[in-house]
Amino acid sequence: MKLKLIASFFLLISSFAAFSQEKQNSSVVEKGLTKVSVMYPFAEGKTFNMEYYETKHMPMVAAFLGSNLVKYTIEKGVASGIPNQPLPFMAIGTFYIKSLSEYQAAIGPNRDAIRADFANYTNTTPVILVSEVVR
Amino acid sequence: MKLKLIASFFLLISSFAAFSQEKQNSSVVEKGLTKVSVMYPFAEGKTFNMEYYETKHMPMVAAFLGSNLVKYTIEKGVASGIPNQPLPFMAIGTFYIKSLSEYQAAIGPNRDAIRADFANYTNTTPVILVSEVVR
Repeated sequence: MKLKLIASFFLLISSFAAFSQEKQNSSVVEKGLTKVSVMYPFAEGKTFNMEYYETKHMPMVAAFLGSNLVKYTIEKGVASGIPNQPLPFMAIGTFYIKSLSEYQAAIGPNRDAIRADFANYTNTTPVILVSEVVR
Repeated sequence: MKLKLIASFFLLISSFAAFSQEKQNSSVVEKGLTKVSVMYPFAEGKTFNMEYYETKHMPMVAAFLGSNLVKYTIEKGVASGIPNQPLPFMAIGTFYIKSLSEYQAAIGPNRDAIRADFANYTNTTPVILVSEVVR
């Protein structure tokens, strides 16, 4: 009985340790990474199908990137933060990667497939920003 | 002894539940939040002092936002992701917030102080995007 009690405490402590570790890793992961942000400008008559983008396009591109991809995010443009200004972007998809050269090597042979898929969800031409996570 | 064993199992189960919750929150913490992205366009003759922005301007604005601010990030524009295109943005600062109306209420009375500080680190006029984190 005493042994069981001790064993359950060990399990308790090790599960605490494991979860704390995992939590810490997820909160500091971004600094120093490279971001590739694909930004879809808004303009009169421009459309964007978020459902297709989220369930088909982004997973396809993410699969090309393999372990160089740390995570990817999707955001939906809602408004300009400046009153009486038009919405700057309808959507932004961002890849957080470890290496830009590896990213380019992975995208290169798949560029045509990626571009051909654009027509399935938008009629706007994206602006692409490569940036470095400072904080 | 039996009671202690039962109590320790309860503790074990409840700590698992608490940590899973926290872990889930930290790995998906961004989904559903509002982002306010302040984007500084690049153009010939435009400058940006990242050191001032990181150590003075962003902490000042963050302090105005209080507990509505979940986190803020800073990125430094490096290049366009499209060959032979100019750099779209020199820098982007992003506030991840719970409530847009609370954000506006907090920024309103401090808008003049925030704008007056722009001249200390840049001569470009930012584009501001309000967006919703989809993923």
